[in-house]
Order: sequence, then C-alpha cells, then structure tokens
Amino acid sequence: MEHEVPTVEWAGDGLRLLDQTVLPGRVEHVVVRDVAALVDAIRRLVVRGAPALGVAGAFGVAVAMRQAAREGWDRAALDEAITRVREARPTAVNLAAGVDRVRPLVDEGAGAVLAAAQALLDEDVRGNRAIGAAGADWILGRLGDRPLRVLTHCNAGALATAGWGTALGVVRALHGRGRVEMVYVDETRPLLQGSRLTAWELARAGIPCAVQADGAAPSTILRGLADVAVIGADRIAANGDTANKIGSLGVALACADAGIPLVVAAPWSTVDLALPDGRGVPIEERPAAEILAWNGVPTAPEGVAAHNPAFDVTPARLVTALVTETGPLEVSAGETPLTAEGAAKGAARGAARPTG
Amino acid sequence: MEHEVPTVEWAGDGLRLLDQTVLPGRVEHVVVRDVAALVDAIRRLVVRGAPALGVAGAFGVAVAMRQAAREGWDRAALDEAITRVREARPTAVNLAAGVDRVRPLVDEGAGAVLAAAQALLDEDVRGNRAIGAAGADWILGRLGDRPLRVLTHCNAGALATAGWGTALGVVRALHGRGRVEMVYVDETRPLLQGSRLTAWELARAGIPCAVQADGAAPSTILRGLADVAVIGADRIAANGDTANKIGSLGVALACADAGIPLVVAAPWSTVDLALPDGRGVPIEERPAAEILAWNGVPTAPEGVAAHNPAFDVTPARLVTALVTETGPLEVSAGETPLTAEGAAKGAARGAARPTG
Repeated sequence: MEHEVPTVEWAGDGLRLLDQTVLPGRVEHVVVRDVAALVDAIRRLVVRGAPALGVAGAFGVAVAMRQAAREGWDRAALDEAITRVREARPTAVNLAAGVDRVRPLVDEGAGAVLAAAQALLDEDVRGNRAIGAAGADWILGRLGDRPLRVLTHCNAGALATAGWGTALGVVRALHGRGRVEMVYVDETRPLLQGSRLTAWELARAGIPCAVQADGAAPSTILRGLADVAVIGADRIAANGDTANKIGSLGVALACADAGIPLVVAAPWSTVDLALPDGRGVPIEERPAAEILAWNGVPTAPEGVAAHNPAFDVTPARLVTALVTETGPLEVSAGETPLTAEGAAKGAARGAARPTG
Repeated sequence: MEHEVPTVEWAGDGLRLLDQTVLPGRVEHVVVRDVAALVDAIRRLVVRGAPALGVAGAFGVAVAMRQAAREGWDRAALDEAITRVREARPTAVNLAAGVDRVRPLVDEGAGAVLAAAQALLDEDVRGNRAIGAAGADWILGRLGDRPLRVLTHCNAGALATAGWGTALGVVRALHGRGRVEMVYVDETRPLLQGSRLTAWELARAGIPCAVQADGAAPSTILRGLADVAVIGADRIAANGDTANKIGSLGVALACADAGIPLVVAAPWSTVDLALPDGRGVPIEERPAAEILAWNGVPTAPEGVAAHNPAFDVTPARLVTALVTETGPLEVSAGETPLTAEGAAKGAARGAARPTG
C-alpha cells in the first residue's frame, strides 16, 4: 500500500514513529521498544491523530509482548501493560480500538499480532483513499465542479493516519482533480499541528496554502474567502456529534452561519455507536504549560491558571456531511451514523433474506 | 484622575509609553521624542488598544511639534508628520480621532495641544469608569445579581486605554461588587495580548482567571462554562457592526448559539457614524512573520504563506449590548448607534424647545 508519509511502521524490532513534535524543523524518527516509551510518545504527541493512534495501539500490543518476553513478565503484567497503552489518551476511540482489534491474538504470538496490526495499517491507507474520493465527489457535487478554497483545522493528514489522510485525503483527492485553489490552514494552538504538520504536508504535495491564527477562521468564512471546511474527527457519537481538536467548533459555527458546508472526514472506526451523543465524550484536559509557555519561555504571568481542553464537540446539527470509507452521510439533514448503521443492517438483512 | 496602569503619559520632554511588547516578562517604558519612533511604537504595538491609541495620537501631535521646532521644519513638513502619526494603523478610528481632536490647536502652540491631550486622557479614564459601571449594571440586570463567569478576548483593559479599561473596566466593576467568579481569557494569537496583558492585569487586580487557546472559546461557551462574554472594539459602524481583534467573531457566534449575551464595551469615540456598516472597515493585514515564527523560531515550513488579518467584523445581529459611557444599547434588538444618535439629537432638541 503506497504511503504518502510513513507515519507509523514496524521496524523489525520496534515501532518506528515519525517524530511529529520536531516537524517541520527536523524530520526525525523514534523507534519505540518498550511500553513506557510508547505511552510517553503517545502522550507527547510524537504520534497523534485518531487513525495513526489506532495503528500505533495495534503495534503497541506487539511492543508489549516483546518486552514481556524479554523481561519475563507474567500474563497479568502483560495485560496491565497493554491496558496502559490502550488508555494513554482518553478521548481518541481509535487507540483503544486498535489495541482491542489485535488483543484477542495475543495467545497466537507476536507474529499474528504484527500481521493483524499491519493489516490495520494497510486498511487505514485504503480507507483513507476511499474517504478522499468520496469526500471530493460529495463536495464537487454540492458546490459544482470548480476550483475551491478549502479551510481546514489541525492535522487530519498523512501524519494523523497511517500515511494518507482523512480531511487532507479529501484535499489530496480534490487537488488530484485540479480543484484546489487555496487551503486556509488554522495554525491550531496550542501545539500548532496546522502550521507545523498540515502546512508541511500541503507544501510537500505542492498544494497552495496559507496559515492563519485559529481566531481568523470564522472571519475567513464569513468574508466569503472559503467555499468549504473539511476537518477530521477523534470520536463521533451515534447521533453525529463530533469530537475533534479544540477550535473545530468555531469553524463549524461559522460554516453554519455563512451557509457553507462543514465536512467531517473520518474512518468508520471513529464512530462510537455506544455513545448516544457528544455529552458522553470525555474531554482530555492537557498540561497548562502548553498554553502558558512557548519553548520554555513563559507567555503569561507566573501563577496564572490555564484551561486547556484538547477537544471540543461539534453538535450534529452543524455537521453538513460526515464522509467515511462507506460514503457520505448528510448529518445535519438527519442521516446519522445510527440511522446509517440501521439502514446498513437492514440492507444486509434484506440481502440475506430470500427474495421474491 | 486615578489610573490603574499608566499606559500613556506625558513625561515632560516626550511621550512615556509602557512597552506592551515585553509584558508580562518585563515592565519597561519607552520615551518617544520624535515621529519616527512614535510611528514605530504604534506599529510594533508598544502602545495598542483603540482608546490608548487615541491618547497617544493626541500627544503625538505635540511630539511632532516639538520635533519640528527642534529641527526647523516648515508647516508642510509638520503637517505631513502629523498625518503619518494619524495613519500609523489603518483600522483604529480612535488614533485618527485623537490626532484630529488636538490638531486645530497647533497654531496655539504645544502647551495648548498638551493640555487638550491631557484632557482627552482624563476623559478616557472617566469614560472607562462610566462604561464599567453601566456594563456591570446591564449584565447584572440581565443575568441576575450573582457571581458570574466572564469570557474575554484580547486586551481591552487598562493597557488598551489611558489606564482603566473598557471590557476589563466592566470586569473591574463587577469584581468591585463581588460578582466575578472566573474570567476565561483567550490568549489572542498571534500576539498574545490575552495571555500577556489581560492575564497580567487581572492577576494584578486579584481577579481569578484562566488563559485558554482562542479555539477553546466556542467550546467554553457551548459547554455552559461562561455566563457572558465582554470584549472591546476598534471601530463600530452606525448599524452596530463591530470591528475588534481577530477571533472576536468566533466568540460572538458561540454566544449567539448558546444564548448568552455578548457585550461590546467601548467609548462612544469608537463609533464611526460615517460608516453605514462593517463592510466599509479596512482590515489591516499584519506581517506573515507574526504567524509563521515565534521569538524568531519558525513554526511553519519555509516558504509557506500566511493570512494575518488583525481584525474581524462581528455583525450587529450578534452584539447583544454595546455599552458606552452614555449607557447600553441593545444592538441585536435593534438599538443601533445611529438610532441612538437620532434619539439623542431628538432629546437634545426636545430639551432646548420651550416646554408647555
């Protein structure tokens, strides 16, 4: 499977991660060989983005098994270590799902777990390409087949996935059809995934872009400078409520006010049907230092508090389309993941039932 | 007139400015004795905030006159220099108004200009205190007399004014009545006036606050963590459309969506009745480096473009109340500066007319 950027890959004796904390200044890799290092890499956002976390979680089970073998852990210690990987970040449902996908194979050995993790990686890239194509189709169908100005927030690109991208997969697909005039990239405070990562990916792909402060997004949209906003998702509830990087909600409110579509592009694995709506999404509160200092230099007076939620929840009524690898759902018009699931099950039952 | 913070003051032989670019790390002053230095200080935001710029502009005329006398300029050169001060930043109407206020006194000499500038400064502090009291009255009237959680954006405090504050004047007034539970302070990218300046002022005044990324504001509001948002203004059109620091619009959209009031606190001098609506506001585009680097360290890949508008325009329909020193106008309910002006003129005519 062709990767645009090798974000996460198995390196023979460990998990090789492109270190996203030092981009765009340096392109460096970290090879993780034990659970503590993996949990640290996940927490520090060396690897980040819901789908990439899913793949890292799956490979992480293999990392834990190899460490267990090396250090002579019993099964309880191994289980505890796998659970630590699974819970390294609370909001991203994909991390837990990636772990859970391969965990049943632990008894079959590290080879089986690695093969399943690699299959998840390949599936992710294949799924991203399908999302990109479906998203581009939907957008051009809605807005007309013309060059578009796209706004995006955070990084839902190759770096957030196994190597292609969800929101940026849609942008890549539009660009492949010659339909991208400009991409407005929210810098995405506090960790600047937009300016550091998304701008790096777009520049690398030759797609014109301009970085802006997160606060500029609503104005860019209300001034008519963007035709569509495309974002990723960290977790999507059954009703379509979407948790994504903090700042997404402001983009969504502006899109609704200006009457331009907000497209959420994400793999179906991001959908959590067990969650009726967004009120159940745990919102990770990240360290105050991310807000109060920059490269170790304080930007606020000593002793001041910070409020640093990593995610916000965009209500379903503001999500024009949710595009997964199975196609688009027009969420604000009432097509929710739950109704889609219902429809899909109905179709499956219908197909299984003898006709006539 | 008691100042909370001496932002701008005459120092005998020049204009003494509290250097806001080095706060909160250092408290330093710059004494400006020529026009080039003043224009540079205004452009670099050593002094900033609409009312403070008005006062600086008025004193700036005296700076130009003293330089003209020292360097033997003719009247045309002096006029040109005064115009350079007037136009140092295009969006803030107060800067030009401050210059225009004292310019007719140039022929009467520097003493007359200085006295008029000092009167403007005293008026600003007095006006701010009136705005603060009126804003606090309006908010407690609307929300009930109880401790409130306030959200603010950028710095419309003592540092943005001659020494008391407009939006923060309202917060100071609420705090004086024991009615502030918490202030959420948007850090306000790219120049961090929120974390650097507003948090500094609030901490100094003993008012509890938490700094957050600008992108967090809509979520803070929709999650019900704030009861009211209070912001300043750089320019207000006749219909109530309000230009303020980039990011204000996202706050406004969230307030409208959540049904909490957005209060714009500004001196009446910020109103530009010659401007029918916000479409006529020139939007200053600031240097790309503010977005693409931090303390000289690049945060985006080399060669990437930036979109860096300094202001956005919040449409009148999203402004619940505009509070000036003459009291509140419920703008989204139809009370605009223009209708208020009409009403005031009518009242003035009514008062002048013999009764009975």
